[in-house]
Amino acid sequence: MNSKGRLYGIGVGPGDPELLTLKALRLLRTAPVIAYQSAIDKDSIARKIVSQYLSKNQVEVLFHLPRALEPEKAKSIYDQEVEPIAEHLAAGRNVVVLCEGDPFFYGSFMYLFTRLSDEYQTEVVPGISSLMACPVSLGVPFTYYNDILTVLPATLPTEMLTSHLLATDAAAIIKLGRHFGRVRDILHQLGLASRAKYIERATMTQQRIVPLDEVNPDDVPYFSMIVIPTKLKL
Amino acid sequence: MNSKGRLYGIGVGPGDPELLTLKALRLLRTAPVIAYQSAIDKDSIARKIVSQYLSKNQVEVLFHLPRALEPEKAKSIYDQEVEPIAEHLAAGRNVVVLCEGDPFFYGSFMYLFTRLSDEYQTEVVPGISSLMACPVSLGVPFTYYNDILTVLPATLPTEMLTSHLLATDAAAIIKLGRHFGRVRDILHQLGLASRAKYIERATMTQQRIVPLDEVNPDDVPYFSMIVIPTKLKL
Repeated sequence: MNSKGRLYGIGVGPGDPELLTLKALRLLRTAPVIAYQSAIDKDSIARKIVSQYLSKNQVEVLFHLPRALEPEKAKSIYDQEVEPIAEHLAAGRNVVVLCEGDPFFYGSFMYLFTRLSDEYQTEVVPGISSLMACPVSLGVPFTYYNDILTVLPATLPTEMLTSHLLATDAAAIIKLGRHFGRVRDILHQLGLASRAKYIERATMTQQRIVPLDEVNPDDVPYFSMIVIPTKLKL
Repeated sequence: MNSKGRLYGIGVGPGDPELLTLKALRLLRTAPVIAYQSAIDKDSIARKIVSQYLSKNQVEVLFHLPRALEPEKAKSIYDQEVEPIAEHLAAGRNVVVLCEGDPFFYGSFMYLFTRLSDEYQTEVVPGISSLMACPVSLGVPFTYYNDILTVLPATLPTEMLTSHLLATDAAAIIKLGRHFGRVRDILHQLGLASRAKYIERATMTQQRIVPLDEVNPDDVPYFSMIVIPTKLKL
């Protein structure tokens, strides 16, 4: 009888393959099965980040999912998508799931974790999140001392974004996409536009840093962030 | 004439030496000078994390600083502490500064960055922050979908902690130390105690996870965190 395989969710970081951790690399290289997701009709970014570390002997399991899917819809999709991974685990094969950034920080690995970790031994490896990578790529010290930091999805209503931006010391605004124009207007109204920095695809080869007022709101990718750094002068 | 040395601020992660990035390891191994800080009368945690990767040929520069020093006092200390590092850089030697967690996330490297990066070429390498490591070590999916995440230093006044905890979906409470008892009381009053998870020294060999109500408030170390994870069921 086979013993069960182990499930690993590994953060592969924001884009630069050198921002993988030593632990993620070790697990990646020794896993017989590698699983990853991609947006529908797109290549998997997570796989691209680690492609140089993969070997031809590894089985790859791909699942396609729309990005930013609401949880109720995602849950029913994952109830099915989990099956091929569960089969490998049941057959005794370890499976490494690649996660952009960090697995537990706005990461879809959590759907696999809740469905599989009771039955299979599961280990999660934290990864460099865009929350750390974006301020570093922008060259702006982010949070310090007694700062409050708030991470705000741009999908939230204007009133909620406004009240949180007024109450925090530093902020990261994520999931900008088609909400960018509205967010920029809010920042101008609150007098925060001069402190706010925009970056897209941090640490990837296509990284772009653009002054806030020069960003084309019709062309803001999913992988973008507005960083409002600490006011403290160090 | 020598050309100037380069300054590197590298995140060494939360404690597990395997959570170093490949980039941090490469820079660390090739640097002639390694600099790091420690709390007064204590060994440097950052140095301990990377000790197995250091060689005897590397010059080490240590600076002692009290933890959680207020910025005004820290600034005048750093105006002096920066000197030995500046001398190495001026003499053409590259200097790698070790930073626990991530350099720009509540990290004292920012004092060196503001004092040296105008004069010397500077590169910062993001690291695994405790913000990512603690939820992973606790095994709790942290933030998802449209969640607002707030990072709160426990040093803040009770009213401010309360209003932010009421307004957020997920939270990390840092810098607990002697504020732990007060924070726990707030969490009970707000009905958040059952969701809140406590961890100390995440990913270090001395990592401890303790139920919130069993923590001894007189014995809470600097490296501890309360994590309030997402309410979303995935």
